[in-house]
Amino acid sequence: MAEHRRRAVVLVSGGLDSATVLAMAHSQGFELYALSFEYGQRHAFELEAARRVCKAIKVNRHVVFRLDLRAFGGSALTADIPVPKDRSHEEMVSGIPPTYVPARNTIFLSIALGWAETLQAFDLFLGVNAIDYSGYPDCRGEFIDAFASVANLATKAGVEGSGTWKIHVPLISSTKSEIIKTGTALGVDYSLTHSCYDPDSRGRSCGRCDSCQLRLKGFAEAGLRDPLEYVSR
Amino acid sequence: MAEHRRRAVVLVSGGLDSATVLAMAHSQGFELYALSFEYGQRHAFELEAARRVCKAIKVNRHVVFRLDLRAFGGSALTADIPVPKDRSHEEMVSGIPPTYVPARNTIFLSIALGWAETLQAFDLFLGVNAIDYSGYPDCRGEFIDAFASVANLATKAGVEGSGTWKIHVPLISSTKSEIIKTGTALGVDYSLTHSCYDPDSRGRSCGRCDSCQLRLKGFAEAGLRDPLEYVSR
Repeated sequence: MAEHRRRAVVLVSGGLDSATVLAMAHSQGFELYALSFEYGQRHAFELEAARRVCKAIKVNRHVVFRLDLRAFGGSALTADIPVPKDRSHEEMVSGIPPTYVPARNTIFLSIALGWAETLQAFDLFLGVNAIDYSGYPDCRGEFIDAFASVANLATKAGVEGSGTWKIHVPLISSTKSEIIKTGTALGVDYSLTHSCYDPDSRGRSCGRCDSCQLRLKGFAEAGLRDPLEYVSR
Repeated sequence: MAEHRRRAVVLVSGGLDSATVLAMAHSQGFELYALSFEYGQRHAFELEAARRVCKAIKVNRHVVFRLDLRAFGGSALTADIPVPKDRSHEEMVSGIPPTYVPARNTIFLSIALGWAETLQAFDLFLGVNAIDYSGYPDCRGEFIDAFASVANLATKAGVEGSGTWKIHVPLISSTKSEIIKTGTALGVDYSLTHSCYDPDSRGRSCGRCDSCQLRLKGFAEAGLRDPLEYVSR
């Protein structure tokens, strides 16, 4: 049993999508290195969820990397700007909302790349999705492809040819209900996850922000009940 | 005098190259936002130098962003790996040395991009150089071009068309002596800078690491004397 398993770095936010991607990477036989970020987000519930998700799937290592994006501000998720509520699906999928965090996925992928190079893990997994999403530019396939080019030019491994970086975004073209069905088939326990942008002090989801609405709609369309507790749903 | 000056984010390490780039951006009339990183590097002298350089040129704001790359290790600059000394110029410019920090410039540029977007500063300045350098893959023009593509795909500004990111690397094709001559002409006080990878406890430069050797050679070729104090030169 000395066979060397391929290592993967998986970005785990604590949300539904990344929990599903982690299970997908696991099912493909990768040795899992999970990376989460404490970046000055509004609440700690999502990091607690990330820890639960990583523990449930027994990742090889889980690093919570600290960097304080509040140093710059500019987003409803890191500064004192209200989170939009009760938007229609059309409003949600048109335009870029105030919950956009400037360059967030670029920053997260860059740091993941640094870790991945020290691990010689050439597979990065990211739970971005360009269907039932909030219009963030750094959740689109064009961005991912461009970042993969950067990765191969930026690193010793890429330049010396000892490895070629692949950025896996297996959910990029899935609807939320498809994601939930995939994860459920793989045994993901969605009660461990957290998606709400604006939970109450006990961590209960608001049910009204874009993230809650997309999640609830996904469960409804999948014919499943979301196990999370909601203030209103 | 209500004219709006264009803003630039300039990465300032405290070294000779970035001090020169800061002076170049200043001479082009940009309103300057300087960004340095406390990333777990071996010593604090370069950050002190960065503060001195920014103060001398009166930048609008200087942010020292903290992120601890020691969480991952893998480099002589962030882990307990020896810094190479007394290498020949041929050794220095062939291959990637152990002072390479995985994905460092990708990480730094990503964070600069996040700040720049909140500032609506579409000009980023970086003191990379692909001539008298240590063979780092993320100091080459191909990498910079690829990162600019990422920047324009990753950001709200890039996607909505409110701005196009430009990454200025004015020193990319300069020799060290040309850099020193340019900076000297612009009034850069190189006694404020710090380049050594392995200074003594008083901050004196070793004179033997790649960075010191490239610096000393540059001053010699420029016909100038390096104002720094060296243990040996």
